[in-house]
Amino acid sequence: MFELLKTDSHSKARLGRLTTSRGVVDTPVFMPVGTQGSVKALDPRELREMDTQIILGNTYHLSIRPGVEVIQQAGGLHQFINWPHPILTDSGGFQVFSLAKIRKIKAHGVEFRSHLDGSLLFLGPKEAMEIQRALGSDIAMVFDDCPSHTGGPREKRAAVERTIRWAKECREQPRAPGQQVFGIVQGGCNAALREECARAIVAMDFDGYAIGGVSVGEPESEIFKAVEFTEPFLPSNQPRYAMGLGTPAQLVELVARGVDMFDCVLPTRVARNGTAFTAKGTVSVKAGFNKADFRPIEEGCECFACRHFTRAYLRHLLNVNEILGLRMVSVHNSHMYLKLMVDIRAHLAAGTFATFRREFVAGYVPSRRVLSARAGTEEIER
Amino acid sequence: MFELLKTDSHSKARLGRLTTSRGVVDTPVFMPVGTQGSVKALDPRELREMDTQIILGNTYHLSIRPGVEVIQQAGGLHQFINWPHPILTDSGGFQVFSLAKIRKIKAHGVEFRSHLDGSLLFLGPKEAMEIQRALGSDIAMVFDDCPSHTGGPREKRAAVERTIRWAKECREQPRAPGQQVFGIVQGGCNAALREECARAIVAMDFDGYAIGGVSVGEPESEIFKAVEFTEPFLPSNQPRYAMGLGTPAQLVELVARGVDMFDCVLPTRVARNGTAFTAKGTVSVKAGFNKADFRPIEEGCECFACRHFTRAYLRHLLNVNEILGLRMVSVHNSHMYLKLMVDIRAHLAAGTFATFRREFVAGYVPSRRVLSARAGTEEIER
Repeated sequence: MFELLKTDSHSKARLGRLTTSRGVVDTPVFMPVGTQGSVKALDPRELREMDTQIILGNTYHLSIRPGVEVIQQAGGLHQFINWPHPILTDSGGFQVFSLAKIRKIKAHGVEFRSHLDGSLLFLGPKEAMEIQRALGSDIAMVFDDCPSHTGGPREKRAAVERTIRWAKECREQPRAPGQQVFGIVQGGCNAALREECARAIVAMDFDGYAIGGVSVGEPESEIFKAVEFTEPFLPSNQPRYAMGLGTPAQLVELVARGVDMFDCVLPTRVARNGTAFTAKGTVSVKAGFNKADFRPIEEGCECFACRHFTRAYLRHLLNVNEILGLRMVSVHNSHMYLKLMVDIRAHLAAGTFATFRREFVAGYVPSRRVLSARAGTEEIER
Repeated sequence: MFELLKTDSHSKARLGRLTTSRGVVDTPVFMPVGTQGSVKALDPRELREMDTQIILGNTYHLSIRPGVEVIQQAGGLHQFINWPHPILTDSGGFQVFSLAKIRKIKAHGVEFRSHLDGSLLFLGPKEAMEIQRALGSDIAMVFDDCPSHTGGPREKRAAVERTIRWAKECREQPRAPGQQVFGIVQGGCNAALREECARAIVAMDFDGYAIGGVSVGEPESEIFKAVEFTEPFLPSNQPRYAMGLGTPAQLVELVARGVDMFDCVLPTRVARNGTAFTAKGTVSVKAGFNKADFRPIEEGCECFACRHFTRAYLRHLLNVNEILGLRMVSVHNSHMYLKLMVDIRAHLAAGTFATFRREFVAGYVPSRRVLSARAGTEEIER
């Protein structure tokens, strides 16, 4: 189901093609995040206009609201949200460990109280797979234990052992027709743990492999290390997915480390604060210096927002709290991420990825504020 | 510039065509409200897809933020907001009298404190026309005195006298190239005052005439009376505009009373509370009874929302505060108003308006909650 078309000669970057039950996904790919069944502020037409191939949904959130029964009655998640293209669903593991207030880890899952109304819920490998089967996603993720990056070695080892045990339980569950299941490798920034976890998970023979626990507030150097410690143990003929990452420059660097799939809330989250991504870094559209700047957010950009509106107008809209303002910055940012992947794929095909990588990363000025926005856990979004 | 194509044989309803410097407007027409330079939650493409011919902008709001200078630098309001089609700008009179906290009425305008930051501002006939000239709207409104409907006879008479005096001052101001100016008739629900005001305003020879002071919290019967007291004194060969109205059934009734143009915040305002307009009245999309209702908001409706999404999905989006929910109800409601005017024009052309009017009004169940939403002054919108 995954075809490795080409490997870069200067890095571990890969050009690939992932076939799902609802269509082909060209990799490397960025997957916009539709936690609650909607990529925040965007509609499906806008998503398709920016070449979105696959989006994310979330097991934890969707099972709480609107509930699995409603989505089943609709004919599955694709029908419910009117997105006939591929969907990957996260298992809810991350949310149980980051959002739920009180939790008790048990042998076969986690007992926790809903972040919404405090009601007592239980989510484990069996439940997560059952929900994802009902949602009918094209790619389901196993239910893992995703510890905080500040946890000690004992906690990390326990999480790895639990993740392996739960992955096995997930592997044995029935699936929706045509549904692929991806395993998740945990182990923090510890080389031995990552290797151990990767070997165990790969032995179970999943359809793809995710590197988990890499967007939990740790510094960038540890993100890269966690990926480098894991990647050598993943089969080259299957897709690799780095969960919850990252900034545009990080995506380029992670592609160079052999990652094929990405998801991240940054493009839409920072848009709602009036911040735009460009190839040179982030810029505050809302800032006063844009008051009479009649250029588009990013010159040369072909997104709907840049083709139709100026910085001055978008700044005004954000300033007076008009919804169109955050809508258009969300359009621009999501387009920016998706276009970056288009460019990466083109450079991989042309054999010019090394130069592109060097120039892009050198030209991209990272923002501390944006990095902390990614790690923000106050919002109901991965 | 206004062509009266046909008058209904059973009512005062009129089919017309208004030519502005940026295109022709078929009347009766509904004009979506873009107070701050954006029809709330909608983009220009969505507006054009629902056959929007002309939108509103507001002098008071736009002159405070972003300020006239910025819009002038952009090349005018059309350029600033990327709407190359007709725009009508309200003069700010209504806002000065309804929003500004502290005001002092002077001979040539009103001194008031901004509702935003309390800064001292002055708006009068000269200033309002100067701002509208700078905005470059296709139709400018005169600066009037719009008293509350609870005011006594002395207050109403003073407002009429001031409105007449200020209209004269407005009439003498220079205009943007091709800009039309509409007079406004005040006088509350008093027949003598309406006649006096209408005769004086019409004598000044404006390009069209508005009936003002009809959306200020008064009961429906008084709205109709105010229009009936005014209409006989307006020239039949010029357009009539009832400001700030109303519900769909009210629009049909006002068309029957000889009104050609309408604007109202209701479609987008109630959408943000999860309420949809249909031909049968309003319905709460957000309500629990829609949880597993997989029909569109209104069966047979051809708006983007009804073509793509179910009540169950939109209810979920509204329930979890996803922006797409209020976006789509805003699309449906605005489309509903615009389609109603398309139907009215078709029935006027076919000579079947009387039957349509009777059946529509009989089938439309008004909502007390919606009527009070129209009169709401807490929001920054006319």
